[in-house]
Amino acid sequence: MTTSPQPRFRHAALIGKYQAQGIRPQLESIAQFLSRQGLEVSVDRDTALNTGWSDFGALTPAEIGERCDLAVVVGGDGTMLGIARELARYNVPLVGINQGRLGFITDVRAADWAEALGPIVQGDYEEEQRSMIEGGVWRDGQPIFEGLALNDVVVGRGATSSMVELRVDVGGEFVANMRADGLIVASPTGSTAYALSAGGPILHPSIGGWVLVPIASHTLSNRPIVLPDSQEVQITIVNGKDSSANFDTHGLASLLHGDQVRLRRSAQRVRFIHPRGWSYYATLRRKLRWYEGVV
Amino acid sequence: MTTSPQPRFRHAALIGKYQAQGIRPQLESIAQFLSRQGLEVSVDRDTALNTGWSDFGALTPAEIGERCDLAVVVGGDGTMLGIARELARYNVPLVGINQGRLGFITDVRAADWAEALGPIVQGDYEEEQRSMIEGGVWRDGQPIFEGLALNDVVVGRGATSSMVELRVDVGGEFVANMRADGLIVASPTGSTAYALSAGGPILHPSIGGWVLVPIASHTLSNRPIVLPDSQEVQITIVNGKDSSANFDTHGLASLLHGDQVRLRRSAQRVRFIHPRGWSYYATLRRKLRWYEGVV
Amino acid sequence: MTTSPQPRFRHAALIGKYQAQGIRPQLESIAQFLSRQGLEVSVDRDTALNTGWSDFGALTPAEIGERCDLAVVVGGDGTMLGIARELARYNVPLVGINQGRLGFITDVRAADWAEALGPIVQGDYEEEQRSMIEGGVWRDGQPIFEGLALNDVVVGRGATSSMVELRVDVGGEFVANMRADGLIVASPTGSTAYALSAGGPILHPSIGGWVLVPIASHTLSNRPIVLPDSQEVQITIVNGKDSSANFDTHGLASLLHGDQVRLRRSAQRVRFIHPRGWSYYATLRRKLRWYEGVV
Amino acid sequence: MTTSPQPRFRHAALIGKYQAQGIRPQLESIAQFLSRQGLEVSVDRDTALNTGWSDFGALTPAEIGERCDLAVVVGGDGTMLGIARELARYNVPLVGINQGRLGFITDVRAADWAEALGPIVQGDYEEEQRSMIEGGVWRDGQPIFEGLALNDVVVGRGATSSMVELRVDVGGEFVANMRADGLIVASPTGSTAYALSAGGPILHPSIGGWVLVPIASHTLSNRPIVLPDSQEVQITIVNGKDSSANFDTHGLASLLHGDQVRLRRSAQRVRFIHPRGWSYYATLRRKLRWYEGVV
Repeated sequence: MTTSPQPRFRHAALIGKYQAQGIRPQLESIAQFLSRQGLEVSVDRDTALNTGWSDFGALTPAEIGERCDLAVVVGGDGTMLGIARELARYNVPLVGINQGRLGFITDVRAADWAEALGPIVQGDYEEEQRSMIEGGVWRDGQPIFEGLALNDVVVGRGATSSMVELRVDVGGEFVANMRADGLIVASPTGSTAYALSAGGPILHPSIGGWVLVPIASHTLSNRPIVLPDSQEVQITIVNGKDSSANFDTHGLASLLHGDQVRLRRSAQRVRFIHPRGWSYYATLRRKLRWYEGVV
Repeated sequence: MTTSPQPRFRHAALIGKYQAQGIRPQLESIAQFLSRQGLEVSVDRDTALNTGWSDFGALTPAEIGERCDLAVVVGGDGTMLGIARELARYNVPLVGINQGRLGFITDVRAADWAEALGPIVQGDYEEEQRSMIEGGVWRDGQPIFEGLALNDVVVGRGATSSMVELRVDVGGEFVANMRADGLIVASPTGSTAYALSAGGPILHPSIGGWVLVPIASHTLSNRPIVLPDSQEVQITIVNGKDSSANFDTHGLASLLHGDQVRLRRSAQRVRFIHPRGWSYYATLRRKLRWYEGVV
Repeated sequence: MTTSPQPRFRHAALIGKYQAQGIRPQLESIAQFLSRQGLEVSVDRDTALNTGWSDFGALTPAEIGERCDLAVVVGGDGTMLGIARELARYNVPLVGINQGRLGFITDVRAADWAEALGPIVQGDYEEEQRSMIEGGVWRDGQPIFEGLALNDVVVGRGATSSMVELRVDVGGEFVANMRADGLIVASPTGSTAYALSAGGPILHPSIGGWVLVPIASHTLSNRPIVLPDSQEVQITIVNGKDSSANFDTHGLASLLHGDQVRLRRSAQRVRFIHPRGWSYYATLRRKLRWYEGVV
Repeated sequence: MTTSPQPRFRHAALIGKYQAQGIRPQLESIAQFLSRQGLEVSVDRDTALNTGWSDFGALTPAEIGERCDLAVVVGGDGTMLGIARELARYNVPLVGINQGRLGFITDVRAADWAEALGPIVQGDYEEEQRSMIEGGVWRDGQPIFEGLALNDVVVGRGATSSMVELRVDVGGEFVANMRADGLIVASPTGSTAYALSAGGPILHPSIGGWVLVPIASHTLSNRPIVLPDSQEVQITIVNGKDSSANFDTHGLASLLHGDQVRLRRSAQRVRFIHPRGWSYYATLRRKLRWYEGVV
């Protein structure tokens, strides 16, 4: 028997998607594989509860952040989004294994996990970092909500309103008043999510900026605008009953006139790990089907 | 009589738009004003020829670049674009006085020139820098054209072709093949010009990137993509008779299959000078009429 | 004193916008003018209540429909939309006087009302008809809501959902499943309202069709589609909590999975009266500012 | 041996794509099949020349139009477009067999031709008709070019111009001046071709209209507009060197200022024959990949 080389990582956490029962066999295989490679293995507490799987120690996300140096996420982009946000402050890198259609940020096929994880635990991988948006909602000079987003922050009209009127300021400078269904502030990561549906451009992850994309703006010339992420973006509710602000879909409804959403680049960054040879552009081509002419 | 303070600039060049006859009286007023402020004044040679105005020394753009430390441009965005490109290597700052509708980069109204230039020559102004795209067309490993663009580089189909097929690589990595009327690579400055018409986003001038905007792409998911300007963009003609490459509308037609357009951020930057209080966002609001709801 | 010719209309109703207090003087002037022209004049009951104006008989919309042969509406497009829908079944023609910015369907400037109404009451005018959409929401085979729309019917996601999944059938034939913020079915009249903001085309009023415009569709190739209005459109909620269906902003929230929105062309049509020389295209040019280059 | 029923068609013409050499075996199989079904079979002259195949009589398109009552086209949408335009005046229905990716109007898979043609020649099929655009270019009151288009008419800028300025009139009424790369007037059939790439909506074939789609318009609010096809569309070159007008890619370059493109609905219609069960919406879903979420 040959001696395995010393692994690059010491302690891996396994995180499964929300309804994880069906993937327990796969989680077990991955856990055993990582153990054999010499890594300590823990399991996300919710994942352990959902699967009834107690062979490995269960840790909360905070404990994972403090103790682990690798997070293996089995699920889709949504699962990755949630745990990446929680682990960002701990600087733990994440690798995503996708059972369904490959995502933008979960790019190891379920069938290929062993082939992909092998080199990664030995230190042979590509790492990239993604910026995040942090901020909150302020009312009468006081913060009433704080949030962190890897994809986007969406300020939108209430269900019973036909629109919301927003005032946008950047770096203390007035940009525009807009009447629309809402406004998306998307990071490069979020530029291929909701913002793309609403007509926004794709932002390469290394762009130090975010894009403001109005949703169904009443002013036809209100086009997406790419701003440096070095300045605070302030969005004020000028008019619109029951408007809402959502950070990666978590947020606050029932905003009042005068409430302000204040956004800045987070000091935290998400670290994604990809198999050697991973390509951002290849992901775009695959997800957006650029290889096929349509018309 | 009070003594004027020492001006911030030493030697100004005056540049008029292409057909400058009608603006000679204004050019003369500006020249006299600048002289009274203690600046040496010269006139762009073509402007002098076009206006038949010989009171001040006439200089070529290269001579302006070497001798002057301020360029006052009277005309529209097109005039500014041309001279800014020529003066960029000399690092001469430019201020634009617009007789017609204000432009994106010529933002002093003809009626307000004195009020605007007064503080500027005393050193009270806002300066911003704009990045440029440089590059050329390569055939069989040899450069056959070199160009510099402040707005954009456009690779387009020939007049008798229904489309051009292009291969795009960035930083040596394959991005996409696209079949379209053409592809625009726009700087932040160019993002509010042709690229905006073709569906691109607005890029704030401080974004360190450019945007690739396909024109009438056959693949509906071929959306504008914002890339860091730190990597070379390579566009190869895969298919398409008489394709062309244009740097700010100057370029080469009759490209052949296999010809490559190679683009990188220029080391030169354009320096624009604006009256104190100038605001990029105010320019957007005015030019795009964001203050008015349309629907 | 010359004898006025016999007017073309017999009995006019005056309708003011919702908060009509401030426009009472103008309503009075118009009423007196119409009286002098030989018309009987009545006032919409709500308008009379809001203005406290009781000089003329107050009628409900139904009574206006039965007794009047002309409706003079003072307000904006929203006011016109509401009363036009109510009067459509009675075939009463409407003319719109706009106090603020001219609208798409209220095209007499407040300052010009006398000049415009004079020829109209004498029979010198342009008339055009606009189609409407009627239909309702069906649950378990039973209608639970009925509505009529001059502009559009919007089926949208609930405030707490990130999208709604809809199945669209036309004339009994399956068209598409779509995941989006919502789907707009717009008449030609509505094509210049919300549908335009969401990326739809303009439909000339004489087109016998409507346009389906997805709002922020997750599938980038889900483009607006113009359908003949001779076939029923059926929109089924496949997935999405608290989805809503709105007919010109009036409707039902809290739709359930399986609920169906069924739409057909209404047998009723709205009759708009315009001053002689009115032009649909001139309205477009004015409202969309086509006379001004932007970029 | 059973007696075949009397076929619905009497005389079929076979038309192959431009470079038809490779498809001769398939053409022969189809010819033999049609013969066995009791139809007389002829071959398009160019197809016969290109394939060197002389077993069946060769006919020009005009002769096909006069003698045949069915045209079987083997090729893609481009091949179909060409022959459909030529046969339209003769009212010969066409069925399209596609060897590559299925098209919008060639919807029988090469592998399925026998299965599809069998019922069709017995009269069991779906027929639909498509409108065409006819018109020409006028200079100084004289027609200098005449054309017919099944897809679209495109008026575009010259290769060396940055734009063309066009004046659009419909039914003698001024619509707009626009500065753009060009303007597409597309039939419902053409709405899924170039017009879709340029941002136009899809028009159902039964819509009695066409859509005007500006290409990269300088005025951001110049949106696609759907017009009834009952009125003449007139497009005048206001400004722009070497502009061109193309009817389904055939046309005239070097247009001069003042030249007019005049378009009207053609009295001729194209008759397409599809296998029973064919669905327009299924074609859209397949071609535009509506079944797949993208973001």
